[in-house]
This record gives sequence, structure tokens and C-alpha cells, in this order.
Amino acid sequence: MTTIKVAINGFGTIGKRVADAVDAQDDMEIVGVTKTGPSFGCDLAVKKGFPLYCTFDDQDRISAFAAGGYECKGGLSDLLEIADVVVDCSPGKMGADNLAKYKAAGVKHLFQGGEKHDLTGKSYTSSANHAENLGVEGVRVVSCNTTGLSRTLVPLFEHCGSLKVECTMIRRAADPGDSNKGPINAIKPVLKVPSHHGPDVMTVKPEIEINSLAVAVPTTIMHLHAIVVDLPDGHGLTTDSIVNMWKETPRVIVMKGNENRITTTAEVMEMARDIGRKWGDLHEIFVWEDGVSLQGNRLYYFQAIHQESDVIPENIDAIRAVMGTESDWKVSVAKTDAAISAYYNL
Amino acid sequence: MTTIKVAINGFGTIGKRVADAVDAQDDMEIVGVTKTGPSFGCDLAVKKGFPLYCTFDDQDRISAFAAGGYECKGGLSDLLEIADVVVDCSPGKMGADNLAKYKAAGVKHLFQGGEKHDLTGKSYTSSANHAENLGVEGVRVVSCNTTGLSRTLVPLFEHCGSLKVECTMIRRAADPGDSNKGPINAIKPVLKVPSHHGPDVMTVKPEIEINSLAVAVPTTIMHLHAIVVDLPDGHGLTTDSIVNMWKETPRVIVMKGNENRITTTAEVMEMARDIGRKWGDLHEIFVWEDGVSLQGNRLYYFQAIHQESDVIPENIDAIRAVMGTESDWKVSVAKTDAAISAYYNL
Amino acid sequence: MTTIKVAINGFGTIGKRVADAVDAQDDMEIVGVTKTGPSFGCDLAVKKGFPLYCTFDDQDRISAFAAGGYECKGGLSDLLEIADVVVDCSPGKMGADNLAKYKAAGVKHLFQGGEKHDLTGKSYTSSANHAENLGVEGVRVVSCNTTGLSRTLVPLFEHCGSLKVECTMIRRAADPGDSNKGPINAIKPVLKVPSHHGPDVMTVKPEIEINSLAVAVPTTIMHLHAIVVDLPDGHGLTTDSIVNMWKETPRVIVMKGNENRITTTAEVMEMARDIGRKWGDLHEIFVWEDGVSLQGNRLYYFQAIHQESDVIPENIDAIRAVMGTESDWKVSVAKTDAAISAYYNL
Amino acid sequence: MTTIKVAINGFGTIGKRVADAVDAQDDMEIVGVTKTGPSFGCDLAVKKGFPLYCTFDDQDRISAFAAGGYECKGGLSDLLEIADVVVDCSPGKMGADNLAKYKAAGVKHLFQGGEKHDLTGKSYTSSANHAENLGVEGVRVVSCNTTGLSRTLVPLFEHCGSLKVECTMIRRAADPGDSNKGPINAIKPVLKVPSHHGPDVMTVKPEIEINSLAVAVPTTIMHLHAIVVDLPDGHGLTTDSIVNMWKETPRVIVMKGNENRITTTAEVMEMARDIGRKWGDLHEIFVWEDGVSLQGNRLYYFQAIHQESDVIPENIDAIRAVMGTESDWKVSVAKTDAAISAYYNL
Repeated sequence: MTTIKVAINGFGTIGKRVADAVDAQDDMEIVGVTKTGPSFGCDLAVKKGFPLYCTFDDQDRISAFAAGGYECKGGLSDLLEIADVVVDCSPGKMGADNLAKYKAAGVKHLFQGGEKHDLTGKSYTSSANHAENLGVEGVRVVSCNTTGLSRTLVPLFEHCGSLKVECTMIRRAADPGDSNKGPINAIKPVLKVPSHHGPDVMTVKPEIEINSLAVAVPTTIMHLHAIVVDLPDGHGLTTDSIVNMWKETPRVIVMKGNENRITTTAEVMEMARDIGRKWGDLHEIFVWEDGVSLQGNRLYYFQAIHQESDVIPENIDAIRAVMGTESDWKVSVAKTDAAISAYYNL
Repeated sequence: MTTIKVAINGFGTIGKRVADAVDAQDDMEIVGVTKTGPSFGCDLAVKKGFPLYCTFDDQDRISAFAAGGYECKGGLSDLLEIADVVVDCSPGKMGADNLAKYKAAGVKHLFQGGEKHDLTGKSYTSSANHAENLGVEGVRVVSCNTTGLSRTLVPLFEHCGSLKVECTMIRRAADPGDSNKGPINAIKPVLKVPSHHGPDVMTVKPEIEINSLAVAVPTTIMHLHAIVVDLPDGHGLTTDSIVNMWKETPRVIVMKGNENRITTTAEVMEMARDIGRKWGDLHEIFVWEDGVSLQGNRLYYFQAIHQESDVIPENIDAIRAVMGTESDWKVSVAKTDAAISAYYNL
Repeated sequence: MTTIKVAINGFGTIGKRVADAVDAQDDMEIVGVTKTGPSFGCDLAVKKGFPLYCTFDDQDRISAFAAGGYECKGGLSDLLEIADVVVDCSPGKMGADNLAKYKAAGVKHLFQGGEKHDLTGKSYTSSANHAENLGVEGVRVVSCNTTGLSRTLVPLFEHCGSLKVECTMIRRAADPGDSNKGPINAIKPVLKVPSHHGPDVMTVKPEIEINSLAVAVPTTIMHLHAIVVDLPDGHGLTTDSIVNMWKETPRVIVMKGNENRITTTAEVMEMARDIGRKWGDLHEIFVWEDGVSLQGNRLYYFQAIHQESDVIPENIDAIRAVMGTESDWKVSVAKTDAAISAYYNL
Repeated sequence: MTTIKVAINGFGTIGKRVADAVDAQDDMEIVGVTKTGPSFGCDLAVKKGFPLYCTFDDQDRISAFAAGGYECKGGLSDLLEIADVVVDCSPGKMGADNLAKYKAAGVKHLFQGGEKHDLTGKSYTSSANHAENLGVEGVRVVSCNTTGLSRTLVPLFEHCGSLKVECTMIRRAADPGDSNKGPINAIKPVLKVPSHHGPDVMTVKPEIEINSLAVAVPTTIMHLHAIVVDLPDGHGLTTDSIVNMWKETPRVIVMKGNENRITTTAEVMEMARDIGRKWGDLHEIFVWEDGVSLQGNRLYYFQAIHQESDVIPENIDAIRAVMGTESDWKVSVAKTDAAISAYYNL
């Protein structure tokens, strides 16, 4: 079997995590990662043995790496020449420019949720639409929030055939390593109502009706979703059967909060640190079992989203989708997760 | 006109504010406030000229005030003898004991939202059910959250005849003067689902169908409600007409967030400080005009609640209700608010 | 007695507070306040009856006020014509431009601590150097931190004749109404070492040797100073006598933290709200009595600074200094504080 | 070579980290870890293959593990029988009871910094007094703060022969996984002045004169020390030579904050996550190079302390000290750190 040659364009918060997850798989390998210039983040690439390329083809910028003490193999074009697929992890607003480069190079491409659906016209989550994206030229792996919603809503939808969803998103205002953003002591509503977050689920599963409201709050570690779902008549579900459904769903963790003393996102992240993935990541969506309640046809639940990492394994599955190497999403998910688990064997 | 003689049992966070609001009115007066013993909080009563009583009738405790340098007029029983109505602002769980004392003394009584509806079997907000509480022996003025929901939902209900409401409450985890409580960096879902907060509205307006989910977040200054309301067919409303309805509703402030740079609860509270009420209080519910959106029959909006003070004017109206001195809630509200406004003439 | 005619250039966080404090005095009056254009903040000026002027002389900008529904009396030049003294409360970096205008208009002027000492060559705090600034053309009222340090250090210096001070400033990262700034969950050291904060005391009392280190922390309400002072041999002081000295010092509050349950800056601000000044302001420096400890010649203490308001009364005294109407700082301070106290008679 | 048999009494925040660090070494092994009962934390022990024991010898408590689905090998006494050394990581206040058990079992023992020096009469940090603790029965590994101070002060002391130190500790108020503690929006001074933190350094290096002040702030991730050191005359150091000294000191990281965009503790912890140790730990003390400044004989600097993990490698060295297997602290430190680095090979 030939391994899939993967390029990471943008070795930052998401890029470094996707690179590790690729490195963990036996059917793909990192052929290079890009940085805009010599900086602290290059050390990590060197340590991992990932070849370094410059985000730009400009010879001066490429040469600057050597001056900073790093070996740079060339520009983005050089990297694209040797790659089968590029995972675009560059900062927002670069999508259109980059897309043209990827197409010109004839390289398959993944974008992240910071880009709009319209960029490629295709969006992806493992459980929602893997099969539809088999062999496509490029696809957007949706955002952390949309990925999280898909994880719990898609199996519900598969069972029920239709869903009407309202989600209030209580969002962490800044990432842990970002000390510039506030607020320190306030709640900030997103005044675009309904917000764009919920409806984005419809880019991967158009049949789910969903809206959302969003607020930002002074925490750095996780988003929390407060979700209300109207199930259709005759759904045949109970609170318990829904809990059991999610317990069997990949990349969803369901635990009793009170019994396990996991009553806030702080304790969820602490549990994640014990799992031992790098950066204390939690790829799974966390659902509080004692927060799930079906009242007639209306379902209430809370879930927590690790905004830095829940999309990482989806990127791996999406690589297999666009490369057409695995058509069964469940097989891909199982392979991805087992490899990651073995990689971080702590 | 004889003034209504008001006793405040518990001169703390709520008690001191109600006392000021009573003091501002011309149809009622403070005849005494209670403290459990000599302490820092007594100074405020002295400064305001409110007679000090002991929460208990125990002679040793009463004498302790003199030792602490404060004149104490007697115990709670002495105070009840000279009062027409007592506003119970004691900490939670004291309700049942106190109720017996108030009944024994033949004094009308108000409780606060920390007590359950069942204590008196009657609950109150000015706009929802003033007339129903005319002349009753005692009533519970509902919590800050329930009061806030009533302010915006009751006029909607009056117009529509029925409403189905889901509210996600993003709650400040601690009051500004409370430095013991956390979390510092987490979101805490209330794992009782649905939470008790929303349904409490039905104690004042049983016809409104409502449920809620609640989370606590690391801020001290305001609660924020993210609300979804299903209006009945034929409601005849638009986003604009709803905004205008609320602009004419007492104790509701509707402002454009982006235009006025009031985009978080921090800026709302800053605006409140400019108003100049003591403690920087905001008696009104704040609705972001640019966060109101009617989509078909489904209405979305955000409102912010100053948890320390929005119930203060309701207590004044409730005093008039139980005393039977003003049967029209709108007249009482107008009188209450004008007097408070003149009192804090800053 | 003619009242001193005071203009406020910049009716924002500091300007609105100084205007109120001026309004409280019987020997001075507000003749106008400036805003850059029609905005929310103009309402407060209207409510208080302060004549509104435009920060600029540009006719278009002046006319914009009428369009926004506010009466504008003219530009800054018009205001300066009728003023004896202007208090510059404009945002930083405007100092040099404004200074030229004030000089051209022949109006006495105060700047705030955001400007550098070099702008006027003179700096002011009431207790440090009132007499030196009698009748000068203009002076800078120093920052909240420098004012706070002067309050407690100057009386110590007057007693001892010399002091060597190290101060670590734990600074609130953003003001309460500012929701943009972070950090949410981090401590930020000021990497300029020593920081500029402490040495700024030497602009008002050059004989005090002082350095400082500063960090910003995720809170909005007060700065806290951790101070170490080396007293000269033969100082004759004890922990108790120092506490007593500060108890007799104007604008310093000394209280036992544990006994009064004022163990953090949150409870200090809560106490301030009870005092009843507008915006919940605390003009005084708060010293924890149980945090004062003299060990040999080395004194340790903590003090808390309300960064939005401690300089307000100093501005009033500084007006009297530059106008030459009161040469004794203690007389001015007593007059200022009594008038403010009566003004906010809550 | 026989490996040292290590027991961990208390497999919690510190215990689980020490266990991993022991597991990484080739001259020691974990023979068992204790838990008080079956709980979430047992899973980690099972995953790592560490034999589980009960903190108590009570047969009912031991049997409870099996009921919870965990194999329990016995009580603490059983574990002590097969151990050469026990690392006590139990919660505070258990020290005296546990000490008696360890002595009775004839097992060498380490305590953590939550215990007082007097418990064993001996305290330890690797660089300060490894040699003095060779072969002793038991020793206390000092707290995270004392360990951090030793790391930077001991080499300074070794060079200068004497030091006078003042340290202001800006402490994180709660650990990341602890959502109960506040404050949310306040600064809390430790009113015992001077605080106990600084002088604790004298338990490992009595010749260093040191005092400290401490405050708690609303952050969860690191302590920060603002340090002022008086060097003796003739020290011969410069800011640069001190920076270079620390760059060669084990377990100290010195980096330019502005150049590397590591300007707060948030970015320090983000850098630590990139290093890839489990839990995102940072065993090293972080010193901002651009925050070091020698002014005459007075040195100013800031350092950040990862309170959950900086003592972990010291525990490993202390095991070798009490077992008498390595007399040179630098050799032990190099061995410890290389093994940990290889273990977390991410």
C-alpha cells in the first residue's frame, strides 16, 4: 500500500494537531508543513521531523529560514508538487487565494471551518456525509461547533428521520494561549440573530432544521451547547435510549456529572489531561448524562466542545474521503481513533 | 393620607435596596430594619436614619448592639408591633419560621424569590398579577430571573393570548461583593433539566408555557437570557412592532447594541452607573434591539438582568398591592419609578 | 466671592467624575464640557445641566450635535474664552496639542496622569506639593497609582525624612466598562523593569526613593499595591503608630480585613457602593490594617486603589492651587471632601 | 542494578505525575499506588499498569474496589511491605499519621510541600541540599513556590555568598480542574505579613535571607513571582551574566517575552503544551529575559511557576537522595530530565 502524502499548509494551532494525527496513521504521512518564517513554532516541526517549507514562494522569505537557523525545503509550490493532499490550516481569509494554488497544482485539498461552505461547495463531518465526499477534489471540514453538533444530532436524525433544533452556544471568548482578548467580566451576545453557527450543520446534513443563539463568556477552555430538539411523533425514544445511542456513537463521551464530579468544563478538561493526548486535547464531544432529559417530544441536553481539537480526527477521515481510500465512515473513524490512541500511549 | 409603615427584616443586599426605595416614596416609610448583630452593615442604617432592630428577640443579642456602639430599638417582635407590612429579606430557608411570626403579629408580609411559591401560595410581579394580589395577607415577590422574564413576556402574552417559551439562562456565578465562589475559568451547566428558573414564571402567569436550561459562567455582574418564543398563528407582530411594544413597557430598556457600543453586559452596567442610582443599580431589563428577530412565528431575543436590583421596584408595588392602596399596576409602577428617579437625583 | 469657572475638556470616564466633584463645590462651577460629537455620553451632560461644547472648533462637527438632538454651545475655543481653568480629560497623546490651545487662550490648565510630567514640568498631589503649585499656569494631576502611593508614603516621609520603597503593582487589566481587553486567564508582567509607575512618585516628592514592578491580572475593579518600605534608623515608629498615622490621613481608609470580612478588592468595592457616591466610586485608598507589619526597619503593607476615581478630589484641590485661592492643602482637602460627601447624600 | 521500589501514597494531582516520572526512570519502578476507594482516578492506574492499593488497611474499604470493578492488591500496609520508599502525596493534614506508619514499616519516605518542615525536620530541593539528604530516613520535597525560588536563587547565592530577597507572589487562586474556588473578579491579599512562602526557602538554604508578600488572583494556570534581590558588594555580576547563569541552570527556561510573543502566563503554558509532557506540564521555571534588570546591587526579575508540576522531577532526585544511590545532584538531575524527556517523546 502506498501511503497518502499529506501537506499541512499552516503549522499553527490546528495544523500542528492535524500533523500529529496524520503521523499516527499507517496509511498516510506528512511530506511537509509550512510556516511564514523562522519562529518559535518551527522548533516543533524540527523535533517531529516534519520537513519545513515556506508559506510563500518568495526566495527572500525562504532564505530567511536559514538565517533563523532552520532548514527550509522550499516554497508552498515545491511542497504541493510532492503532496497528494493539502490540509489548509492557514488563518481565515486566505482560502480563495490558496484554493487557486491547490487547483493549479492538481492537489486534493481540505479547508477548515473558518472558511465558508461556498469556497468549495462541499462540507464534511465523518458521521454526516463521508460517502458523499468520496473522491472529491476538495472539501471543508466544518468548525468545532458544527462538528460537535453533528456528532450528537446525526445519530438522532438517522433514527428519527427529522429534527427541529434550537441551540444556545455559550462560547469561550479566547483560546488558552491568547491573552489579548476579553471580556474579563462580562457576557457578550452575538447580535446577529439567529447566529450562523447552528445553521452551518445544514451544510453537512441539510435535512436537520436548526437555528442558534450565541454568547461569548470569560473562559478559555471549552464551548458549551445548551440544546433543545423537537423529535417527530412516533420517535420511540426515551431519555435512556438516547443516552445509550450516544454511548455507542464514536467520538462522544457520555458521563454522569454529579457522580463523577465532572460538573463544569474545567473538570471535563482535567479528565482530558488524564487521557494523555498532546496539548491535553479532547477529540470527543462530552455529554452530561444527568443533563439529558426527554420531555414528551422535546429533548434537552448539554454538551461541551474542545474547540482546539474536536475536528482533528475528522480531518484524517476527510483525507481518506477525498483520496477515496476508505468508503465506510465507521471503518475510517475506528482506524483513525485507534491509531491516535496508540500514538499517545501515555 | 397615612403612610404605610414598612419593616425590613434583613438589611442586606436586597433589604438595603428595598429600604431606600421605600424611603423614596411619599405613601410609605421605613419604621425599622433588622440586623442579626452589630456589624459594618449597621452603619448604613444609622446614616440613613432607619431605626435598628435585632433579627431575634433574645435580650442578649439585643444588648450586643449597644456594646458595638449602635442603638437597637428591640427585637423583631417589637418591630412587627409598629409595622403594617414586613418585607422579608432574610437569607433563604428562614421563610417558614418567619411566616409564623408575621402571621402571629397580624402583619402583612412580602417574601423574596429565594423562597418557594408554596410558602404563601401567592407570587407577584407588577405587570403579571398585581390585581390578583390586592389585599392579600402575604405574597412572594419572584426572583430576579422570573421578574425579568415577566417584564418582556407578559406584554407579548397579553397581545398573543398564548406563548411557548424556551430560555437559556447564562448566569453570573457570584455577586460582585462575593469573592469566595468560582468558577474562575469554566462553564457550569445546571444538571437539573429543565431548570426550575423558567417554569417559575407560571407562578405569576400560569398561561405562559415555559421551560429553561441554565449555566453559570465566570462573571459577577448580570444574568443574560437567550430566549426563543413560539407565537401563535395570527399574532400580527413584526420584529419592529415587538421592539416598539417593549419600548413602551415600563422597566424595560431597549437599545441598539452596536450603534451605542453596548455590546456586552459590562457596557450595560457602565450605562447603569451613569444613571446614578445607588450601588450602580439597574432596575430595568436591558434588551438589545439588534438582537431581536422574528422568524415566522418564532421570536429570538437576548435580555440582561441586574440580579441585585431588578426586583426592587416590584417590592414597592407589591407593598401597595397587599395594603390594597393602589389597584392599578400601571399607576403604581409610574409612581414608584418617578419617586426613585427623583430620590437618586444625580 | 466669585466662583472659579471650570471647563472640562473630555467628558468621559474621568471628565464626568471631575465635573460632578466641581459641581459639588461652592467656590467653583462648570461652565462647559466637551464631547467629540453627539453620542450617548451627551445625555449625562444634559441631565446635569452642563453646557455642551464640541472638542473641536470645526463648524461641521459643531452642527452635528444639533442633528443628533443636542444643543452645542460652540467649539473648544468658545469654551476656553469663558473659563478660568480647564481640566484636560482627553484621551492620551492629545496633551501637547491641547496645551498650546490652553496657553493661547490664557487659561489655567490641569492634565491627568496619562500625560507625562514633562508636558508641564509640574505634577501634583494634594498632600505632596500643593503649596509648590500655587498660582502656576498648569500642572499634571498624577495617575491613580501615583496618587495612591503619595497618600500613604508622604505622611511616612514627613515623619521619617527619608524612605526607600519597592512596590509591586497588581493591576486590573481593564476597566469595568471595557469588554475588549484581556487576559481572561493569565498574569501579564510589565517587562519594562523597573516599571515607570513607582518612580513617578518622585515627580511630586523627589526625596522618596522608589522603584516598582507591575503585573496585570484578570480583574476589572481595583489595583492592589504590595509595598515594602525601608525606614531610616531612629524612625521611632511601630506597626500601631503607622496604622494610627494613616487613620488620621485624609483620603485613606484603614480597616481590618478579617474582622470586617473585607478580604479582597471585591468586598472593598462593595463597601464603596454602600458609601453611595455615584458610579460606586471610592476616592480613598484602602489599607488593610491586618496587612501592615513593621519588621525592624522594614515596613510591609497592602493597599487597594480605585483606578477610576481616586484622583477626582485631587483635581478639585489642584484647581484651587493653580487659581491660588487656597494655600493650605489640608483646608482644601477638608472642603473638597465635605462638599462631595454632602453632594452624594445617599 | 536493582531498581528502587517506589510506592505512591495518594494517586491524585501530584501522585499521578510522580508515578509517571518514576516510571520513566531505569533505576526505579512503581510497585503500587493508593486510592481511597474505587473512582474515576483508578482507571488511570489501570491503564498505566500500576498496581492499585487502598489508602487504608480496612478490609471493607479494600473489598469496595472489586465491587467498583477494580483489582485492589491490599491496604497501605501491604504496599509498604514491598516498597523501598514511599512518596506521600496524600492531602494535607495526614502527614503525622502517615509518618508513623512509614516509620513502623521501616520504609524511606518523601512528603510534599503541603506538610510543614517540622514533620521530618528535613526539606529538599535538588540544587540546594541534595548532598545533605543522602541516606536520610525521610524528607519533605518543598512546595512549588519554594522549589521555584530555589531554582533561581541558589545559583545566585552560590556565586555571591549572601542574598537579601523580597518576593511578591501573585498566585493563581485555583487549579485548572477546580471550579469551586473564586474569586472571579477580585485580588485577594494574604493578610499574614510577611507571608510564609518566601521564608520557606530557608528550610533548604538557610543562608538566604528572604521575605514575601502574597496575593491570589483570578487565574488557574501559573503563579508569578516578582522578585527583588539585594546582592552584596563586589558581586561582579551584570544583567547579562545573570541571564547566562540561569540559561545554564537545570530546570530554568529563560526566554525573551516580547520577541517570542510570550508575554503572559497563558503563552508560557501554551509553549509547555508544545513540549508535549502529559497534562501540558512545565517542570521548568520560566524567567522572562527582558524582565531581568540589575540596577546597582539590586536585581529585579519575574518568574512563572507551574504549580502542578515543577516539583515532579525534584521528587525523583529526592528518591535517589534518600536511597543514597546518587550523591551528585547534577548527575541525578541530568538523568531524571533525560529520562522524562524520552518518556514523553511527542
